[in-house]
Amino acid sequence: MRVALLGCGVVGSQVARLIVEQSDDLAARIGAQLELAGIAVRRPTRHPDVPADLLTTDAEALVSRDDVDLVVEVIGGIEPARTLLLAALNSGKSVVTANKALLAEDGATLHDAAAKAGVDLYYEASVAGAIPLLRPLRESLAGDRITRVMGIVNGTTNYVLSRMDATGAGFDEALAEATSLGYAEADPTADIDAYDAAAKAAILAGLAFHTRVTMSDVHREGIGDITAADIASAKAIDCTVKLLAICERVQGADGECVSVRTHPAMIPRAHPLAGVGDAFNAVFVEADAAGSLMFYGRGAGGAPTASAVLGDLVAVARNRVNGGRGAGESAYADLPIQEMGEVSTRYHVSLDVNDEPGVLAGAAQAFAEQGVSIQTVRQEGRGDAASLVLVTHAATDAALSATVRKLTALPFVRRAAGVLRVEGMAGE
Amino acid sequence: MRVALLGCGVVGSQVARLIVEQSDDLAARIGAQLELAGIAVRRPTRHPDVPADLLTTDAEALVSRDDVDLVVEVIGGIEPARTLLLAALNSGKSVVTANKALLAEDGATLHDAAAKAGVDLYYEASVAGAIPLLRPLRESLAGDRITRVMGIVNGTTNYVLSRMDATGAGFDEALAEATSLGYAEADPTADIDAYDAAAKAAILAGLAFHTRVTMSDVHREGIGDITAADIASAKAIDCTVKLLAICERVQGADGECVSVRTHPAMIPRAHPLAGVGDAFNAVFVEADAAGSLMFYGRGAGGAPTASAVLGDLVAVARNRVNGGRGAGESAYADLPIQEMGEVSTRYHVSLDVNDEPGVLAGAAQAFAEQGVSIQTVRQEGRGDAASLVLVTHAATDAALSATVRKLTALPFVRRAAGVLRVEGMAGE
Repeated sequence: MRVALLGCGVVGSQVARLIVEQSDDLAARIGAQLELAGIAVRRPTRHPDVPADLLTTDAEALVSRDDVDLVVEVIGGIEPARTLLLAALNSGKSVVTANKALLAEDGATLHDAAAKAGVDLYYEASVAGAIPLLRPLRESLAGDRITRVMGIVNGTTNYVLSRMDATGAGFDEALAEATSLGYAEADPTADIDAYDAAAKAAILAGLAFHTRVTMSDVHREGIGDITAADIASAKAIDCTVKLLAICERVQGADGECVSVRTHPAMIPRAHPLAGVGDAFNAVFVEADAAGSLMFYGRGAGGAPTASAVLGDLVAVARNRVNGGRGAGESAYADLPIQEMGEVSTRYHVSLDVNDEPGVLAGAAQAFAEQGVSIQTVRQEGRGDAASLVLVTHAATDAALSATVRKLTALPFVRRAAGVLRVEGMAGE
Repeated sequence: MRVALLGCGVVGSQVARLIVEQSDDLAARIGAQLELAGIAVRRPTRHPDVPADLLTTDAEALVSRDDVDLVVEVIGGIEPARTLLLAALNSGKSVVTANKALLAEDGATLHDAAAKAGVDLYYEASVAGAIPLLRPLRESLAGDRITRVMGIVNGTTNYVLSRMDATGAGFDEALAEATSLGYAEADPTADIDAYDAAAKAAILAGLAFHTRVTMSDVHREGIGDITAADIASAKAIDCTVKLLAICERVQGADGECVSVRTHPAMIPRAHPLAGVGDAFNAVFVEADAAGSLMFYGRGAGGAPTASAVLGDLVAVARNRVNGGRGAGESAYADLPIQEMGEVSTRYHVSLDVNDEPGVLAGAAQAFAEQGVSIQTVRQEGRGDAASLVLVTHAATDAALSATVRKLTALPFVRRAAGVLRVEGMAGE
């Protein structure tokens, strides 16, 4: 069973190492020897540890070679990854990939090619690194009805938010610390602006709800605007702020549909996700029969991600040895995506107000006009420090953001802070 | 795709319900309609909700019928389950079972029959109910080297210990409460004496270490002797007591081997397993590349267990539709089992002692004679309330239990309490 490896960076080098080091174990588990046929890289001189005869700069030629059975892709990005994987699938090779961006952007093309060729397309490593999550969703829960997937799937932003929460630091300071420790890349846009989390949310929603979900279906908000004051506001209601990826099966106006979104949210400190610190990932899954499940572990890093790649590699190799094929794409349900405005959420808002009579009545009126019900309200401070802290019941996101716009325009409101959605609170 | 269901109790009735209620979804996911061919029960009159033409008391005839493709067994126990499943496998039917006792006692016979017939034997529901755990071990981590599986896999005992910890209740009182709430069976022996946890430990160790492990390989201690004083001793060192199933890959005198055991142990309150309350289950998995993973959810109950059965049912049905077979047993490593006496653990012991000079020196001497190193020692109280609380570093279980025997025989020791192993503490 010969493997072509595309990419030999942080993850790829670990994949190559494990294939060699665990050679005997892998052979015993697969029923055939697993061998590296070649490794496609951009600059061969940068990989002095790899036997030179394995290295090539011609990825296209490598994936087309007749002596290659399986292709592992850890380059990332849309192109040339898509062209290479399509070539591999079309020539009857099974594919293992960690490429969340490509799967979220154009997974359908890859799935169709895999189905047509009767080969496997596995991608456990694309979401939450080493944590077995996609296989449980796709297989273990295949006889259940999943209603919700909610989790922390980006380590960089979780590190930044955890530091802000622990030290009171501002966003820039916490990000600088994450960068210096290697938790954030030189250009952290994909993490901070939640492109990474959004791609993962699309993949999770697709598996959970048997529906094709792409990047453009995902409502995306990053953490760049989160301030130390937001974190303090969260603390005042015994919450912390996390960047969440949320996939829900919901009842819309025209029947069942899917909400897929990623945004920062306050969650109660007692919620199990609140305790997930550092660069760890954790995902909650709720299903009708199974109840609540949680999966926790390292969501990134070379070795953890390589572990997920190797697990897939053993599976597709075993399928090939047995002459079979694993579960393919399941998108039969084809549920519509709910508009963000129609999504039911809760809001927290902290208003700096003039210390005068009628303030609470005026604010309450603004909520009532939009049909939004207030769960708790707290008046704090006097004089220049007067503020009104409100948490709403669940209402449509459109009504809630309209309410916040109204509130900030009221004459007695000086400033709105801590305007954040609230998730995971009891009584929703 | 026609299914014979053996047993229609708490789990079986949920399996039957889900097969009927989710008929369309299951068909779409499998690629073929799933249909109940028959349900074997002992007393048909007890199942008025089930169509009478499906019920039979002749399980043997049911599993041999030509129009049955798949057999689901949720009877439990060794016989007649073993005979029925062997008949099913030998006649070319794939099997899904939740029967931990049978798998731990004689899994090899079933695995051999499945391999010979080229059919599937799946058993996700046998350990930790709805929590996807066996599939991740068998497939997701198939390319990694698992070093440890440690978890809470019995809900009844976890409920009892959690109550003792929360309320200070004694064992009998907490067990009575568990019984009245339906968390404990009328005869709770299998749970309390850890037969249930031991069977699960055997199954987990087999999968994790690619080695056949049976019930008789598992060192088993239940929670029947845990007292309110033990729980108090645990609290005094910021720990709680949990019944753990532990499977470890360890370096023995003659090379690599496997330790499999289940016993109560003190674990630090900060450990994620310490927070697992009620009847929940949670399992930690450590692997070389993946690092630490945790799985959490409902470990028992009709619907959660049925969810796991259905997931397996979809998988084996899909394999049949595709003409393939899933991963079979993997026992190539064939590692020896380490004797409990050689297993490296830590001990906590709290000694009621006479308040006189030389007590600490005398106790320390008893440890030193067995080559056991003390990590912490605390002298407490005066006069009749004098006590010595010790936590050791890791040493062989044999040396530690010999030390405890010696300590309790010392003239100045009036009583030893809180003699418990300590797990999950940093610095091991």
